[in-house]
Amino acid sequence: MTLERWQKMSEWPMVVAALLFLVAYSVQVIADLPDNEGIWADEVVWVAWAVFLVDYGARLWLAPNRRRWFVRNLHELAILALPALRPLRLLRLVTLLKVVYGRAGNALRGRLLVYVIASATMLVYCGALAALDAEQNDPEANIKSIGDALWWALTTITTVGYGDHYPVTIVGRLAAAGLMVAGIAVLGVVTASIASWLVESVSTETAARAKEVTDAAVAAIEAIDEPLEDQIRSLSDQMARLTAALEAGRKGDS
Amino acid sequence: MTLERWQKMSEWPMVVAALLFLVAYSVQVIADLPDNEGIWADEVVWVAWAVFLVDYGARLWLAPNRRRWFVRNLHELAILALPALRPLRLLRLVTLLKVVYGRAGNALRGRLLVYVIASATMLVYCGALAALDAEQNDPEANIKSIGDALWWALTTITTVGYGDHYPVTIVGRLAAAGLMVAGIAVLGVVTASIASWLVESVSTETAARAKEVTDAAVAAIEAIDEPLEDQIRSLSDQMARLTAALEAGRKGDS
Amino acid sequence: MTLERWQKMSEWPMVVAALLFLVAYSVQVIADLPDNEGIWADEVVWVAWAVFLVDYGARLWLAPNRRRWFVRNLHELAILALPALRPLRLLRLVTLLKVVYGRAGNALRGRLLVYVIASATMLVYCGALAALDAEQNDPEANIKSIGDALWWALTTITTVGYGDHYPVTIVGRLAAAGLMVAGIAVLGVVTASIASWLVESVSTETAARAKEVTDAAVAAIEAIDEPLEDQIRSLSDQMARLTAALEAGRKGDS
Amino acid sequence: MTLERWQKMSEWPMVVAALLFLVAYSVQVIADLPDNEGIWADEVVWVAWAVFLVDYGARLWLAPNRRRWFVRNLHELAILALPALRPLRLLRLVTLLKVVYGRAGNALRGRLLVYVIASATMLVYCGALAALDAEQNDPEANIKSIGDALWWALTTITTVGYGDHYPVTIVGRLAAAGLMVAGIAVLGVVTASIASWLVESVSTETAARAKEVTDAAVAAIEAIDEPLEDQIRSLSDQMARLTAALEAGRKGDS
Repeated sequence: MTLERWQKMSEWPMVVAALLFLVAYSVQVIADLPDNEGIWADEVVWVAWAVFLVDYGARLWLAPNRRRWFVRNLHELAILALPALRPLRLLRLVTLLKVVYGRAGNALRGRLLVYVIASATMLVYCGALAALDAEQNDPEANIKSIGDALWWALTTITTVGYGDHYPVTIVGRLAAAGLMVAGIAVLGVVTASIASWLVESVSTETAARAKEVTDAAVAAIEAIDEPLEDQIRSLSDQMARLTAALEAGRKGDS
Repeated sequence: MTLERWQKMSEWPMVVAALLFLVAYSVQVIADLPDNEGIWADEVVWVAWAVFLVDYGARLWLAPNRRRWFVRNLHELAILALPALRPLRLLRLVTLLKVVYGRAGNALRGRLLVYVIASATMLVYCGALAALDAEQNDPEANIKSIGDALWWALTTITTVGYGDHYPVTIVGRLAAAGLMVAGIAVLGVVTASIASWLVESVSTETAARAKEVTDAAVAAIEAIDEPLEDQIRSLSDQMARLTAALEAGRKGDS
Repeated sequence: MTLERWQKMSEWPMVVAALLFLVAYSVQVIADLPDNEGIWADEVVWVAWAVFLVDYGARLWLAPNRRRWFVRNLHELAILALPALRPLRLLRLVTLLKVVYGRAGNALRGRLLVYVIASATMLVYCGALAALDAEQNDPEANIKSIGDALWWALTTITTVGYGDHYPVTIVGRLAAAGLMVAGIAVLGVVTASIASWLVESVSTETAARAKEVTDAAVAAIEAIDEPLEDQIRSLSDQMARLTAALEAGRKGDS
Repeated sequence: MTLERWQKMSEWPMVVAALLFLVAYSVQVIADLPDNEGIWADEVVWVAWAVFLVDYGARLWLAPNRRRWFVRNLHELAILALPALRPLRLLRLVTLLKVVYGRAGNALRGRLLVYVIASATMLVYCGALAALDAEQNDPEANIKSIGDALWWALTTITTVGYGDHYPVTIVGRLAAAGLMVAGIAVLGVVTASIASWLVESVSTETAARAKEVTDAAVAAIEAIDEPLEDQIRSLSDQMARLTAALEAGRKGDS
C-alpha cells in the first residue's frame, strides 16, 4: 500500500474523527462538566486522538523516505503529543481544513474568499472554545460563558477590541494572539481580493488594447503578402510570355 | 404582465415603503414609545411590511419558473417572515440599496467609493437603531440614547472600539457583528480603490510603452510595402518595354 | 487683476495667517485661559479670520463667473461663517494644506506617502486640540490635558482605541469621527503604496518581456527588407543587361 | 583600511554587542533590579555602548568625505548620545536589523513577509521592554510585569487595543506610538503581499496572452519571407534562362 492510497482511504474517517473530537470538546468546555460526569466526552476525545495517532503511524510507516517524512512532519508529532494544554488539542483540526482545501484545485479569487470566511468562522469558534476552556475556572477572568467567549473572539478577530471581555490567563492570551494574527490575515485577503478585482479590470483593458495593436500589426503584415505575390505572379506571367515569344522568334528564324 | 415590467413598475413604491418604514421604525426606537402611544408608527411599519409581502407575492406569481425563483429568493422570505426580532426588520431595507445600486450601470472606481460611503452611512444608522432597540430596555446595557448608539456604531465600523459603550444582548451583538464585518469590507474597498488608482497609473504607462513599440513595428511593416511595390512596378515597366522592343524586333524581322 | 494673480499674491500671507491662527488657538485651548486673560490670543484669531474673509471676498470679486464660483465654493463660506463651534474654526487650516500640496506637481508615490504623514500629523494635532477644547470644561469628560488629548488622538487615528480616554461631548465625538475616517484613509494609502510598489516591479517585468518580443518582431520585419531589396535590385540589373543585349542585337540586325 | 572593509570586519562583533546589550537590558527591566544588584547588567550595557561608540568613531574616521558622512549619519549620533531615556537605548538595535537585512540581496515578496514577521516580533519584544521600563515604577501604571507588557504590546501592534492595560507615562506612550505605526505598516505589508500575489497571477496571464499575439505576428512575418524569396528566385532563374537563350540566339545569328 502506498502513502497516497492510504491518504485517500483515510480522508473521510479522519474528517469524522476530527468532527467528533470537536463536538466532544465543545460539550466538555461549554457545559464545564465535572470530571465524573463528562466521562463519555472525554472518551470520545481520546478515541479521536487514537485515530490521529494511528493515521500518523501509518503515514510514517508508508513514507518512501521515513527519516525525511519524520523531519518534515515534526509539527504533526508536536500537535499529537501535546495533551498537557487541553485547548491546544484544537490544533488537530487543521486536519479538517486540509481536507476541505485539498478538494479545491487552483486558487481562484472567489474561492479564496470562501476559504477566508470558512477559516475565520472556524477560528472564531475554536478561539472562543480555547479561551473559554482556559479562562472559565480562573477567579479573575471575565470570559465565563460560551456567548461571551464567541463575542470576545469576534471583537478580537475584527481588531475592534472593546475591552469588555479579555483573557487574563497565558493560554487564553495565546488563543487571542492567534485570533489577532488571523484578523490581520483576513483583512489582508479581503482587501487584496477587492484590489485585485479592481486591478484586473484595468489589466484586462490593457491586455485588450495590446491585442488590438498587435492585431493591427498582423493585419498590416498580411496586407503586404497578397499584393506583392500578385505583382510577382504577373511578372512571372509576363516573363513566361516573353520567353515563349523569344522561343517562337528563334524557331521562326531557324 | 412580466416579472421585469412588475419590477420596473414597483421600484418607486417599494422605495417609498422602505423609507416610510425606516422613519416609523426610527421614531419607535428613538422615542422608546410605550405601546399605547406609538400606535401610528406601528401601523406604518405593518403597512410597509404588507407592501413588501405584496411585492414578494407578485414576483413569485410572475416568475417564469416559480419553484426556482422560490429557492433562489429564500432569503427574502426569511427577511419577510422574521418579525419576532424587531431590529431584524431593518434587513428589509436591502430593497432600498438594491434600487440605488441598480441605477448605476457598471462599477467604475469612483462610483464604488460613493457606494461604500452611502452603504457605510446607512449601516451605521441602521446598526445604531437595531442596537438601541435591543439594548435600551435591558437593565445592564450602556447604550441608552440614539447619540450613544450612533457613536458606538461609528467606533465599531471603524474598528476603533473604545469600549465606553458596547452591546450586552444577543441581538445587539448580532448588529455589532454586522458592523464589524462591514468595517472590514469598507477598509478593504477604500484601500483597494487607492491601490488600484496607483497601479492603474503604472499600468497605463506600461500600456503606453507597449503601444509605442507596436506602433514602431507597424511603421516598419508599412515602410517595407512602398519601396518594394515601387521597385516591382519599375521592374514591370522595364519588362513591358522589353516585350514591346522584342515584338517590334520580330515585326521588323518578318 | 485676475483671480490667478490674486491667488499667487495671497498665497504666503494666507499661510502666515493660518499659522498665526493655529498658534493663537493652540494657546487658547492648551492654557484654557479665562476670558479676560486670553484677549490677545482671541484678537489674533479674529485678525486671522478677517484675513480669510478678505481673501474670500477678493476671490469672489475677481472670479470670471461670480455665481458659479459662489456655488462651487459654498464650503469655504460655511467654514468662514461657522464661528459658533470654536473647534470647527480649525477647518480653516485646509488653506494651509492646499498651499503645501499645490507646490507638488504630480502625485508620485513617494510624495503621496509624505503627504499622508504630514496630513496625519496635522490631523492628530488639530483633532486633539478640537477635542480638548470641547471636552476640558465638561464635568464628565476624561480628556483634560493636551498630553491626554494627543495620546487619545493617536489611539483613535490608528484605530487602536484603548478606551482609557474617549470624548463624551458631541463636538468631541465629531472630531473623533474625523480622526477615525482619516485613520482608515491613512491605512489605505500606506497599504496601497506598498501594494503598488510590489505590483510595479511585476508590471515592469511584464513590460520588459513585452518590449522584448516586439523588438524581435521589428527585427524580423527589418530582416525581410534587405535581402528582398537586394534580390530585386539584382533582378533589375539582369533586366537592364538583357535589355541592353537585345538593343545591341537589334542594332546588329539593322 | 577602507570604510567597506571596516563594515565587513565589524559586522559580527556589532551583532554580538547588540545581542549582549538586549539580554542585559532585558534582565535589568524584567527583574526590576535595585541599583546595587544589577551592576553586572549595567556594565554589559555600558560595554555594548562603548562598542557602538568605537564603531561610530571608526566609520567617521574612515569615511572618504567625513563632513558628508557626519551629516548623513546624524541619527546614529543621536541614538548614541541619548542615554537619558533608558528605553530609547533599544533604538541601537537597528544595527542588528541592518545586518540581518543586509544579508538579503533583493526584496522578493516571500522574503518581505519574513522580514515583517521578524521585525514585528522584535518590535513587540522591544516595545514591551521599553514600556515596562517606563511604567513599572509609576504608581498609577497598570503594566507591571513582562507578561502584561508583552500582552499589551501585542494588542497594540494588532490595533485591537482592549484597554485592560495601557501606558500612562510619556515614554511608555512613545513606545506605544511606535508599536501603533508599526502595526499599520505590518497590516500594509501583509495586505500588499497578498494583493500583489493575486495581481501577479493576472499580470502573468496578460503577459502570456501578449506573448501569444506577438508570436503570431512574428510567425506571420516569417511566413512572408520564404514564399516571396522562392518566387523571386524562380523569377531570377527564368531571367537567367531567357538571357542564355537570347545569347544563344545572337551567337546563332552571327
